[in-house]
Amino acid sequence: MKISDLSTPAALVDLAKMERNITRMQSRMDSLGVNFRPHVKTSKCVEVTQAQIKAGARGITVSTLKEAEQFFAAGITDILYAVGITANKLPQALALMRKGCDLKVLTDSVQSAAAIAAFGLANDIRFKVMIEIDTDDHRSGIKPESAQLLEVAQALSVGGTELYGVMTHAGSSYDLNTPEALAEMAEQERSGCVLAAQRLRDAGFACQVVSVGSTPTALSARQLEGVTEVRAGVYVFFDLVMHNVGVCTTDDIALSVLTTVIGHQEEKGWAIVDAGWMAMSRDRGTQKQTTDFGYGQVCTLDGEPVEGYVMTGANQEHGIISRPDHPDLSIAKRFPVGTQLRILPNHACATGAQFPEYQALNRHQTVQTWPRFYGW
Amino acid sequence: MKISDLSTPAALVDLAKMERNITRMQSRMDSLGVNFRPHVKTSKCVEVTQAQIKAGARGITVSTLKEAEQFFAAGITDILYAVGITANKLPQALALMRKGCDLKVLTDSVQSAAAIAAFGLANDIRFKVMIEIDTDDHRSGIKPESAQLLEVAQALSVGGTELYGVMTHAGSSYDLNTPEALAEMAEQERSGCVLAAQRLRDAGFACQVVSVGSTPTALSARQLEGVTEVRAGVYVFFDLVMHNVGVCTTDDIALSVLTTVIGHQEEKGWAIVDAGWMAMSRDRGTQKQTTDFGYGQVCTLDGEPVEGYVMTGANQEHGIISRPDHPDLSIAKRFPVGTQLRILPNHACATGAQFPEYQALNRHQTVQTWPRFYGW
Repeated sequence: MKISDLSTPAALVDLAKMERNITRMQSRMDSLGVNFRPHVKTSKCVEVTQAQIKAGARGITVSTLKEAEQFFAAGITDILYAVGITANKLPQALALMRKGCDLKVLTDSVQSAAAIAAFGLANDIRFKVMIEIDTDDHRSGIKPESAQLLEVAQALSVGGTELYGVMTHAGSSYDLNTPEALAEMAEQERSGCVLAAQRLRDAGFACQVVSVGSTPTALSARQLEGVTEVRAGVYVFFDLVMHNVGVCTTDDIALSVLTTVIGHQEEKGWAIVDAGWMAMSRDRGTQKQTTDFGYGQVCTLDGEPVEGYVMTGANQEHGIISRPDHPDLSIAKRFPVGTQLRILPNHACATGAQFPEYQALNRHQTVQTWPRFYGW
Repeated sequence: MKISDLSTPAALVDLAKMERNITRMQSRMDSLGVNFRPHVKTSKCVEVTQAQIKAGARGITVSTLKEAEQFFAAGITDILYAVGITANKLPQALALMRKGCDLKVLTDSVQSAAAIAAFGLANDIRFKVMIEIDTDDHRSGIKPESAQLLEVAQALSVGGTELYGVMTHAGSSYDLNTPEALAEMAEQERSGCVLAAQRLRDAGFACQVVSVGSTPTALSARQLEGVTEVRAGVYVFFDLVMHNVGVCTTDDIALSVLTTVIGHQEEKGWAIVDAGWMAMSRDRGTQKQTTDFGYGQVCTLDGEPVEGYVMTGANQEHGIISRPDHPDLSIAKRFPVGTQLRILPNHACATGAQFPEYQALNRHQTVQTWPRFYGW
């Protein structure tokens, strides 16, 4: 099948770009001497994840137990569920482990740690548990220097669990946009997580794994002493937010939405396309960054950016394409009805999630359909 | 099954509220003397749509041909595809019609009108076509007084099509928030669409159907003289955007996301829940309205709003619950780990779309799973 045979909107993955992104990250991790555990919440697609593993990834990171189930069913066993687990999800985790999944779970509270331990004891199984560390005030986790760190480790020492390691995610790296600031954040992420591991070891606890990562810090760290593994997700496709952060160019963005021009409002300089926010997602992640791409950057069918044209507005199934700086009153001539365009997304994780499948475009310009899943 | 048996996050539909919303709209349409054709893009769920039809709806409106296919497969034949159709989608529309679907399609350009007519002639079928009218400068459509209106009608007069009527959608009603302004917009929508119909009839064209609507204007119109049918979608669930527009209360909102507290950052006054933007959607529709609800209004498990607490931040699978006016440093006591909450969404169409199924909660507090579909 060729691009022109696809019905629109469709989620296109440029395989050459994806492979280049995978190679770039894996080579970097290899040269930094750490394992790489990609976060597969970005693609939720077995074929994409297999390409990451083929390139050298060791295990995967997931954001839901459904991802764990789906990827385990596809033959991947080494899985980190990187969202703090609560008691109500433990039976689902147990069922996976009983089937042979080497699942690791996460906690940042004494209460949840105690619940995991009690559940493990009651079910005669040993949960591998990581403690979540907060190295950037961004979201969850325990501060590396907090007394709570040792309390959680203690709660995990009563049987039913094995303290497997520490992990952190410097999500605030998304707010930065200079190489220096990114390198500093990567070092803050590394040193905080290593400190937490050291404090655990000093107190007599084992702490085998020290896991850090986000796409910006993974691509910016100068050294990763004390770190054993890195996680990153969105690098596999990249997107306009990452372009604004400064860790990729628009030419690296492997995911785009194929769309068709369905009409115009000529006097406003609008072309209207059949990809609205249902296709692009409502993510406006570039809104507060240095370049606001609206709902996405317009490219030709071949994938070349059309300078200055973005999706300035979106309804559920309508997107408005225009030139924000000064309206193009000839837009109907430039993009007549029926023209096919590609739109680069703000946020690949959010845009991919709107589609039941990717259209994987190879070097011969033919497409293959790769299913992806959603839900919980 | 009871709410407490559900894994989280889950999309809950309160059936009593949904039925009340359906009855309110249908009664209003009955008393205004018009047909009602609900827009089912909000729910994409057969059971919800059947409830609308049972209450008196005549036909449905869809935003994708996939919706048309799915609802036709469920036995609904009278379907309006309310997004301008282009040549590449005509074979799919034809296939539906050949199976017996009474499909109506839409256009606002001479070029597309001519393409539909040529395709109809070539396939010996007669497409029922509506002309889209722009009554509020919001999106697509032809101005009621434009010369182009008659040109499109002319392009539809060569065989292969039947000019079925005119339709408009005053989407800019979402930007208003007083009864007076909404009533004025409803009148603008009505009078513009009726004018377009009159111009067509004066020029000798048949124009059987005059179709208008959006949830705010449908609920605000004082009279609908000359209108034959009204369309509205989000009223079936309502949401916080509609609350801010002023056409519902929070107590009318039938859709909410069930979530579990998974942790805290106590010194910041944060509770962290397992519903992030993947569950809520990235829709921040209340951001520019008089009350900004962040990613949603926090309610107890019973559905009672907890005044002042909203989802102030969201990552993919993490939501941050806090009190924006002044942090609640006792939030861990108020919402301990394991607490279940419901979050009212900004935009029901966007939030529903994140879930493969609804959990329909009846008066006996038991839930039934209702599938919904997505994609194109």
